[in-house]
Amino acid sequence: MQVQGFLAAAVEAGIRYAGRLDLAMIYSQTPAVAAGVFTTNKVKAAPVLLDQERLRSGLAQAVLVNSGNANACTGQEGLNLAMATSDMAAQQLDIDPALVQVASTGVIGQPLNSDPFARAMPGLVAALSPEGFESFSRAIMTTDLVPKTSQATVEIDGVQVNILGITKGSGMIMPNMATMLCFVVTDARIDHAVLDSLLKSSVERSFNRITVDGDTSTNDMVLVMANGAAGNIAITDQTSRAAEQFGAALFQVCKDLALKIVADGEGATKLVTVRVSGARTEDEAVGAARTIATSALVKTAFFGEDANWGRIICALGRSEAQFSERNVAISFDQIRLVEGGLFVGGDVEAAATAVLKQPTFTVLVELGEGNAEAEVYTCDFSYDYVKINADYRS
Amino acid sequence: MQVQGFLAAAVEAGIRYAGRLDLAMIYSQTPAVAAGVFTTNKVKAAPVLLDQERLRSGLAQAVLVNSGNANACTGQEGLNLAMATSDMAAQQLDIDPALVQVASTGVIGQPLNSDPFARAMPGLVAALSPEGFESFSRAIMTTDLVPKTSQATVEIDGVQVNILGITKGSGMIMPNMATMLCFVVTDARIDHAVLDSLLKSSVERSFNRITVDGDTSTNDMVLVMANGAAGNIAITDQTSRAAEQFGAALFQVCKDLALKIVADGEGATKLVTVRVSGARTEDEAVGAARTIATSALVKTAFFGEDANWGRIICALGRSEAQFSERNVAISFDQIRLVEGGLFVGGDVEAAATAVLKQPTFTVLVELGEGNAEAEVYTCDFSYDYVKINADYRS
Repeated sequence: MQVQGFLAAAVEAGIRYAGRLDLAMIYSQTPAVAAGVFTTNKVKAAPVLLDQERLRSGLAQAVLVNSGNANACTGQEGLNLAMATSDMAAQQLDIDPALVQVASTGVIGQPLNSDPFARAMPGLVAALSPEGFESFSRAIMTTDLVPKTSQATVEIDGVQVNILGITKGSGMIMPNMATMLCFVVTDARIDHAVLDSLLKSSVERSFNRITVDGDTSTNDMVLVMANGAAGNIAITDQTSRAAEQFGAALFQVCKDLALKIVADGEGATKLVTVRVSGARTEDEAVGAARTIATSALVKTAFFGEDANWGRIICALGRSEAQFSERNVAISFDQIRLVEGGLFVGGDVEAAATAVLKQPTFTVLVELGEGNAEAEVYTCDFSYDYVKINADYRS
Repeated sequence: MQVQGFLAAAVEAGIRYAGRLDLAMIYSQTPAVAAGVFTTNKVKAAPVLLDQERLRSGLAQAVLVNSGNANACTGQEGLNLAMATSDMAAQQLDIDPALVQVASTGVIGQPLNSDPFARAMPGLVAALSPEGFESFSRAIMTTDLVPKTSQATVEIDGVQVNILGITKGSGMIMPNMATMLCFVVTDARIDHAVLDSLLKSSVERSFNRITVDGDTSTNDMVLVMANGAAGNIAITDQTSRAAEQFGAALFQVCKDLALKIVADGEGATKLVTVRVSGARTEDEAVGAARTIATSALVKTAFFGEDANWGRIICALGRSEAQFSERNVAISFDQIRLVEGGLFVGGDVEAAATAVLKQPTFTVLVELGEGNAEAEVYTCDFSYDYVKINADYRS
């Protein structure tokens, strides 16, 4: 789990709890081309505001991430603190503070104390190593049960290019909300405009197609850094074969990480793909799939292993997709339950229930209106979801 | 619980289960002016399709309601069956079938058998009486824990006018989905256009402002019938004092019933009013309040009695409302937790937690942008919600 020219590390800084990794860093030995996608929530955490501003340069060299405190809803003081901690990192690394990106995840609305950062920074920077990504991936976890990483290798113009992604998922965060953070490093040589465009399209079809509970966080971000260490011919044309190959690999990493987030969703026992085909437009397909994938009634039925197609067609009916009820077909994996809008009858329900007993399956909804299709990835809605989110502070 | 000129009854027809009231009727001794509001779901149950067509006349004399089967996703056969059962009722009552409205609630996608209707109809009509509304209110229940009725009396031009409403709520329905049915009878003399308009505005600010799980059903409907038996001077002008008085009483009944549905929501232990004020427009206030009231993270926090304002401001941030984070204030009843977008600190959280321990409270979110405001009513999200919706068939 290494990418040329990138180092990483994590330490126990005691930001909220003692005895756990909670401060982590990624460092590129040279300034890297960088692009980011940030939360669409109108309430943006201080690190998001700072990063967006700094990313205008299209360059970054380090990322400083803390868990335990989201530094969100903390006003000007929070913004000052984000800058102060990035200054500490820059000073220790001897780089321009404008090249430091910051990310936070944890409790909302509580002032972040800079003392733990100051104390831990020298040790964090001293610990940077090519093998540091594993401990980095554990340091950014909150209620995640497992660390989440994904790698891809792609040969571009005869040169091997590596991509490594690390994410944390929709876990409740001490105790405020689900935050999704993702960091991707690659040794590809690539222009900022191409990287930015490929990141956006990858995120649109991966992280933006998953749902755990329908809430978006103040801190969500996906950041990619490309340091060019692979030495490939620079990817400068978005329509080139090289951009297509790199984009496919980047998408693969993003989708793999996104699915890992869903599979580790709060209380999740099942990973479900909701696929809508035969829609008039991709937007309608995405909208329909997302409405089904977000419905509490549908998700509790998945948990109950109940082939409850009535809830699926009902959710479909309140989505934005145009369709005629009499053309709708619904299947669980290969088992078709509904055809022409009507239950096919017989003992098909027992077969469908067997599909739902699996840890992962696909719900296919065919609209018969056109050729557009889309997938959204979701999990079931269990007692543990309620337990995790209701009981945390009690 | 009577309104002049209206009779009601319920019987055990054995539509899905034996030994429970499952077929019910309201009958007006004269054709009544009638107006309805129906589900916006693109998948509409057969009774909804039939009723909408018949209500074009602006008249109705009887309503036939069954529980145990929703007659939804049942195709042409389902529509034929809705017509056949309404024909049976019309024949037994000796009225025009076009004056019979039908409503169904229960399992989706299973053929409705007309035999129980045929067997039960003579007894149902024979049982009609002015005192029949109590058993009517019980017959339409599904997973509702209590029957829900509401009455209002208003003096219009010196004449007493009565309004009686009966509803069933967001209970899971054997085992498919939450259906909301509401029937309002009044002895007011009123024009169809005025009644229709007053119903729509009442529903908009009552039933359309509640949420249990964010799903809308294929069968939702609110029907009002006004038979004129009170003998008041007919209400013909929407801008008249009489229309205003009647409209206020109708709204009061609708809001009372809507709150009863939320309080009896699946697994609900708390009734929460989410009030957003200081919005630029009422639409934005409604949108913000609804996004907060529907958030699974917010609703589980209510269940956990956790004054988790971070989740509230996070939900607010993904709503359509325009606002500046630094102007936002959040209170639980009289306890203000957030001012100027920041936590006020001190021991206010203990006081807010005490508010959340009550069975009913208000969350007030002040945006500081304008003068528009709105309320949305919701319940908490408990283990029992998951249990009811996941375990029903197991």
